[in-house]
Amino acid sequence: MKNIQDCYGINENGHLTLGGVDTVDMAKKYGTPLYLLDEDKIRRQCAIYKNALKKYFPEGSMPFYASKALSFVDIYKIVKDEGLGIDIVSSGELYTALAAGFDVTNACFHGNNKTDFDIEYGIKSGVGYIVVDSQEELCAVDEIAGKLGKEQKILLRITPGIDPHTLKAISTGRVDSKFGTPIIEGKAEQITKAALEKKNARLCGFHCHVGSQIFEPDPFIEASGVMLRFISDIKDKFGYETDVLNLGGGFAVKYLAEHAEVNIPEYIESIARNISSLCEKYSIKMPKIFMEPGRSIVAGAGVTLYTVGTRKEIPGFKNYISIDGGMPDNPRYALYQSPYTVLCANRANEAPDYKATVCGRCCESGDLIAEDIQVQKMDRGDTLAVLVTGAYNYSMASNYNRIPRAPIVLIKNGNDRLSVRRESFEDLIKNEVL
Amino acid sequence: MKNIQDCYGINENGHLTLGGVDTVDMAKKYGTPLYLLDEDKIRRQCAIYKNALKKYFPEGSMPFYASKALSFVDIYKIVKDEGLGIDIVSSGELYTALAAGFDVTNACFHGNNKTDFDIEYGIKSGVGYIVVDSQEELCAVDEIAGKLGKEQKILLRITPGIDPHTLKAISTGRVDSKFGTPIIEGKAEQITKAALEKKNARLCGFHCHVGSQIFEPDPFIEASGVMLRFISDIKDKFGYETDVLNLGGGFAVKYLAEHAEVNIPEYIESIARNISSLCEKYSIKMPKIFMEPGRSIVAGAGVTLYTVGTRKEIPGFKNYISIDGGMPDNPRYALYQSPYTVLCANRANEAPDYKATVCGRCCESGDLIAEDIQVQKMDRGDTLAVLVTGAYNYSMASNYNRIPRAPIVLIKNGNDRLSVRRESFEDLIKNEVL
Repeated sequence: MKNIQDCYGINENGHLTLGGVDTVDMAKKYGTPLYLLDEDKIRRQCAIYKNALKKYFPEGSMPFYASKALSFVDIYKIVKDEGLGIDIVSSGELYTALAAGFDVTNACFHGNNKTDFDIEYGIKSGVGYIVVDSQEELCAVDEIAGKLGKEQKILLRITPGIDPHTLKAISTGRVDSKFGTPIIEGKAEQITKAALEKKNARLCGFHCHVGSQIFEPDPFIEASGVMLRFISDIKDKFGYETDVLNLGGGFAVKYLAEHAEVNIPEYIESIARNISSLCEKYSIKMPKIFMEPGRSIVAGAGVTLYTVGTRKEIPGFKNYISIDGGMPDNPRYALYQSPYTVLCANRANEAPDYKATVCGRCCESGDLIAEDIQVQKMDRGDTLAVLVTGAYNYSMASNYNRIPRAPIVLIKNGNDRLSVRRESFEDLIKNEVL
Repeated sequence: MKNIQDCYGINENGHLTLGGVDTVDMAKKYGTPLYLLDEDKIRRQCAIYKNALKKYFPEGSMPFYASKALSFVDIYKIVKDEGLGIDIVSSGELYTALAAGFDVTNACFHGNNKTDFDIEYGIKSGVGYIVVDSQEELCAVDEIAGKLGKEQKILLRITPGIDPHTLKAISTGRVDSKFGTPIIEGKAEQITKAALEKKNARLCGFHCHVGSQIFEPDPFIEASGVMLRFISDIKDKFGYETDVLNLGGGFAVKYLAEHAEVNIPEYIESIARNISSLCEKYSIKMPKIFMEPGRSIVAGAGVTLYTVGTRKEIPGFKNYISIDGGMPDNPRYALYQSPYTVLCANRANEAPDYKATVCGRCCESGDLIAEDIQVQKMDRGDTLAVLVTGAYNYSMASNYNRIPRAPIVLIKNGNDRLSVRRESFEDLIKNEVL
């Protein structure tokens, strides 16, 4: 287990542990499905980014936790405590961060389509940077800030045109993207010129994001190269000196034992070396560098626990192991055929010598968690664990098939603490006009 | 519009109407995103099934609304009023139906993995039929019913091995399925024998489901043929006369103008003719026939309304129109690349002469509603309508990107009524332990 994430282990009872805590005990205590999160691991990941950005980049550089990966009140408290900023993408995330007492002057407000409400709520709340995605939004931010009598710091989201050779659905730095403004045909230059002319929106720099699950530093190096050249051009044309370059997120997470290790400090160092030499080449001051890790902060800290209901062998076809959750709590296999490591939490020390397809409980054939993988042979009552589920599981959860959403339990220093309660049946109808 | 579903129209202001009501007025009154549902249309669809099953099948035959397509309190009231039973797949759906005062003796409780809690809750609530999916579940139902001192009627879910030539994710009648027990290698016969020996679970018949979005009656004819042969074999072997044959759901819905019409009464008549002649051939009494329409009851009655935020033209690539919703309220394009009809609700009378990709507001490239479709050219403030969203939209909705879920407004006799309120920011953190 440790070869996947350092927070996993197997104890003397042969049970899977997370942060040293017996996961089978947790399943019994809180019921299943259950999201377990190792808070210590999350803090370690925060520190890795914090220290690397501090070491290799100019003063004021910092990581902003991309909270769309996992957003609930306690995560903002943890991230605040570790000294990171936050990347938020909606008024709902902003509301949650504020409920945690987060100082949102350390927040970047993202999104390809912020509503006027979002913009007003962001400005009124004192959000540090609004990352402006389009001409319409630039005008809206300027107008709303003016109406409120405030000056709002902004970054412009630029699409550098980098294909990180990853999934189409999560490749956002390509020119053909719903996000940002492309450099091609002078589009980015035009919006920069427009931004510099605004009275209530103050341009502080640029943002780009190349994609997700990137195992090599190269796409970041390529993207920062394109961005610095653009920054240099903008300086030449408008005399504008860029204060902030936000490189977005995207470092990969190890979901399977066969996935490569991602050495974050090493990658950041190589990105920094490249940025430093390009700044020298273009004779520009090195901007503050922001990065926005989300998945790589929380994914590895998570385990989802389920109870097995049935095992079904279809002669000549598959062996199905059914669990008491599925796409409502983790739609990533249904959406992207994302790979997961699965094991029997109460017999984690046994060999995974059974080929099975792990399926959810929804009335939908596509409700699967993993197909034809090697696991322990499991039967009704066994506790099944899916590893590396800290990111994009709770945050994407639905009530499909009217299944109440699972609770979140945090593990810290070997102790467990309920952070988000399981939804009740009453919750399911709480907004119905009866 | 009327060539897609009969509840759509365009009024004298050039606005899209649903059930005669101006959708642009509704967007202003309730805000966007907004789920609008034509209750009259839902009732008409219910009546089509009710009348056809009554006309062509023996007394006691009836449709059961498959509520996983759209589950909220009012829908169970509507369905009850129209004299249909319900198909439920979880304790959450059962709870919601009970909250509506639904008589659940007219309910089939489905699911490939019912927990002991589900089974106990179902039996205690007096659910008509538990549709038993596996050997484990058969034992659990018998044991729990015994413990409660009750006899529970059951159907056995059988996989007939029919491929309806549709999407893999929604083809559930194939042999290789997480659902039910296959007929091959005597598996279905074994579970039937086991069921007949149970004391507290009373076998009443069989269930099968071939898939979804089926435009022809043939897969149903094929499946009922396989099932009747099985029923005849079972009669020969065990002397057991089947009371109920539940053929599941799956009739297609017209999402696009170019989709074929599905003449439900005509298809049911042709299925009935085949069943009748096979019963004669096998010398068996024609069982009561249940059908479980879900999508075809509610899909066409729905429209989702959004407000446009940005229009972005990427030279040489796509034109993106961004809306204030997306995969949180409708994940079907992200999941299945489902086709949708999209138009400008406030200029529905204008020609759709602009090629665009309609994208949601989530920070995810895959958050799209439709790619490269013909629509009216829309800009910030326009009301964008997505048609035929009554099924698997609200029921699959999430809070991804921490976006509160949209409200449901019912249209009846030209009047609108809020049925489910929009989620609030407070709702987002209601279960957090602060």
